[in-house]
Amino acid sequence: MSAPLIVQKFGGSSVANADRIRRVARRIARERANGSDLCVVVSAMGDTTDELLALAGAITDDPDPRELDMLLATGEHQSATLVSMALHALGVPAISLTGAQAGISTDGRYGKARIANVDPSRVRAEIAAGKVVIVAGFQGISQSVLEAPGKADASGSAAAPAAVVHAAETTTLGRGGSDTTAVALAARLNADRCQIFTDVRGIYTADPRVVPDARQLDVIGYEEMLELAHQGAQVMQTRAVELGWVNGVVIEVLSSFEDAPGTLIKEDPLVEQRNKVRGLAHDRNVAKVTLVEVPDRPGVARSVFEPLAEAGINVDMIVQNVGHRGATDLSFTVPRVELAKAKRILDPIARELGFRELTTDSSVAKVSIVGAGIQNAPGYAARMFGALADAGVNIEMITTSEIRITCMIAEDALETAVRALHAAFELERPETVDATLDATASLRAAAFGADGTTAVS
Amino acid sequence: MSAPLIVQKFGGSSVANADRIRRVARRIARERANGSDLCVVVSAMGDTTDELLALAGAITDDPDPRELDMLLATGEHQSATLVSMALHALGVPAISLTGAQAGISTDGRYGKARIANVDPSRVRAEIAAGKVVIVAGFQGISQSVLEAPGKADASGSAAAPAAVVHAAETTTLGRGGSDTTAVALAARLNADRCQIFTDVRGIYTADPRVVPDARQLDVIGYEEMLELAHQGAQVMQTRAVELGWVNGVVIEVLSSFEDAPGTLIKEDPLVEQRNKVRGLAHDRNVAKVTLVEVPDRPGVARSVFEPLAEAGINVDMIVQNVGHRGATDLSFTVPRVELAKAKRILDPIARELGFRELTTDSSVAKVSIVGAGIQNAPGYAARMFGALADAGVNIEMITTSEIRITCMIAEDALETAVRALHAAFELERPETVDATLDATASLRAAAFGADGTTAVS
Repeated sequence: MSAPLIVQKFGGSSVANADRIRRVARRIARERANGSDLCVVVSAMGDTTDELLALAGAITDDPDPRELDMLLATGEHQSATLVSMALHALGVPAISLTGAQAGISTDGRYGKARIANVDPSRVRAEIAAGKVVIVAGFQGISQSVLEAPGKADASGSAAAPAAVVHAAETTTLGRGGSDTTAVALAARLNADRCQIFTDVRGIYTADPRVVPDARQLDVIGYEEMLELAHQGAQVMQTRAVELGWVNGVVIEVLSSFEDAPGTLIKEDPLVEQRNKVRGLAHDRNVAKVTLVEVPDRPGVARSVFEPLAEAGINVDMIVQNVGHRGATDLSFTVPRVELAKAKRILDPIARELGFRELTTDSSVAKVSIVGAGIQNAPGYAARMFGALADAGVNIEMITTSEIRITCMIAEDALETAVRALHAAFELERPETVDATLDATASLRAAAFGADGTTAVS
Repeated sequence: MSAPLIVQKFGGSSVANADRIRRVARRIARERANGSDLCVVVSAMGDTTDELLALAGAITDDPDPRELDMLLATGEHQSATLVSMALHALGVPAISLTGAQAGISTDGRYGKARIANVDPSRVRAEIAAGKVVIVAGFQGISQSVLEAPGKADASGSAAAPAAVVHAAETTTLGRGGSDTTAVALAARLNADRCQIFTDVRGIYTADPRVVPDARQLDVIGYEEMLELAHQGAQVMQTRAVELGWVNGVVIEVLSSFEDAPGTLIKEDPLVEQRNKVRGLAHDRNVAKVTLVEVPDRPGVARSVFEPLAEAGINVDMIVQNVGHRGATDLSFTVPRVELAKAKRILDPIARELGFRELTTDSSVAKVSIVGAGIQNAPGYAARMFGALADAGVNIEMITTSEIRITCMIAEDALETAVRALHAAFELERPETVDATLDATASLRAAAFGADGTTAVS
């Protein structure tokens, strides 16, 4: 019977300075004293990544993506070595590994690489040798192939035959990539648990800064967590949750600053018996774009959305009004920080497509309810719209997924809306498996799509 | 006919901030516009290495050497990527490589690794592809072997057969290691020249801060440069000079802040015809240790010097007086910064060996004259001692090599001594090949070892 294997991930704020690094080391040492084998993934210290970006920005407006990845990866190298040193100082055998040394290979998309494979042999060997392994998160290594002049001829003359050089390149996984590193390692190492240490205690029914009686969840399903994260809950990156889901990795989100149980993200067999709304998410980083009087003919949507996708702009809610007089209004949301870029792309297209006007609105926000099985029980939509109406909040757009309903509203109504929904779905109350929701919800039924828009996404 | 290949090395002060990095990039771009292929080695920005050491020191008093090397190597990764970005911004194709990517393999002595081999295939391939290659200096990669549990069994159970894991480890080459990186690459790439950019214009006949009319040398031999560096001239690390000597690499030391020819370090066929004193070096980082009345019997020297060597303390001048009454006085120098450590080691030995007393003196300094062929012309020693005597400087100890004579003197007489020697050997005058030195020197002959000590090193 071997020791349980736990993968732990500590974010930048947990290792922001020497004191915090020593505290993280003490926590790791305590877990190890409990008999666990440990593989620990760390982010760069505090604001290191932003500082390195600023340094690159002082050199050039347009840093080469490969060079930027090499530069940024040093932040995690540094924190990993320092955590390892701090463990040594506590008498705990430890070793830091770069992403490459930890066997994390990726594709070659600099700045947003995807993990292609994890070769766990080095990590396993170090754990088998009794060490805590500290892995630099957020990074991996890709392979490229170069033609080199022949080696035999030291003068490098043109007559020498060409040789193939396999060049290992450092790649980074994008923002939040350390979560992905941790989950990928946990999957490949068959870890018993993957713990993500953050500056909050876990996943809440809503943002506790907005809803004071928001309640921490003991457990949440992968799909529900994904929807919450997509809709603005910033605790965990969606990629890491997806990877955990596909590989069945049990993820625990917990605080690195206090000793308290966190929230488990895992397959939840109780899901059908629970109160089906598990939590609320909200997002202020959103802006609405409306193309007024777009000619109503095939191919128009593609002409609008393809160039945005090519520019890497993530379009979320898309709503098209019923057409009249051969034209229609097309509205959608983009991240607020990308609005200017989206306008630059769409302005010339306006002339080509012949729509009348492009209007934008940055004073909007999204609020979502999330829970497995929501779509199968239309009462939830009714209760959501009713609660917002009772609170005097006007709904501008609506989209849904299997387990989510999202409303776009005015940003200045956001906190009112979140609190009203939290109360309406009684999220402050501990969950029961005997929900009587459907019956009560039907009392204030409201038509889905009652504001005259149709959700198409 | 291929383009000339130049290896350039820029030290930390040359890349200390974004402005200086852009300036370095402009210099590289200019050289490239002249038609050269370029491989550029960089040190970490400014005080980065010291800052990283301080960070490690805030975590632990005794950082693990492997982890420290991983940490320190990030400094050069950062500067290399930034120089590459700055070249891109100028439209010059460039790529940064870590020591490992540049094929620099070392032994496994962390913090003071020696270069074992350079595989130039990646560097050659990138140059052949038209790029300026920027190599992170000061570092390489070593291989170690680990036993790993078998890969086939994902659960890592004990029944799986062990597999060998070849683990690539980052190593650093010690202070000044970037010079060594540059010369090693120049040797292996068959470069036409290796340029070391520093904050001085080249090698001088003496430290210009002490001797205002010190003269920059156009050329100096490897062996002379080695002696100057060993005796306190801090422009270049001795290891890099040695490596250049063994491989016949022509090294140029020049300023990164002005456009002026530097000093070439190379085999100097004119050496026998030149004024044989090429330059002076001085060193204040020295302390004298004297063991008073050491029993005069075999094995005593070993009992003293072996423990010092094991502690890594570099003993330089060693002088033993003629014995009397079965005892002798043994004096030697250690770096002043190591004096306390040397005393801690020698105090217990004093009781074992039975010497009467251990005295130390930290207010001493060394001054050396260096020039190929000095030893074959005893007139130089005479002139040196005479010049010091005329200046009222008392000589405490003397040592010599084939091409050097060093005197230990009181530190407060150091500047007087350096200026007197510079004048006595007429080093401010441009060199001629028709030296008349021997004749004039014989006029003030003085017995070598005239102060009653005997050089034994």
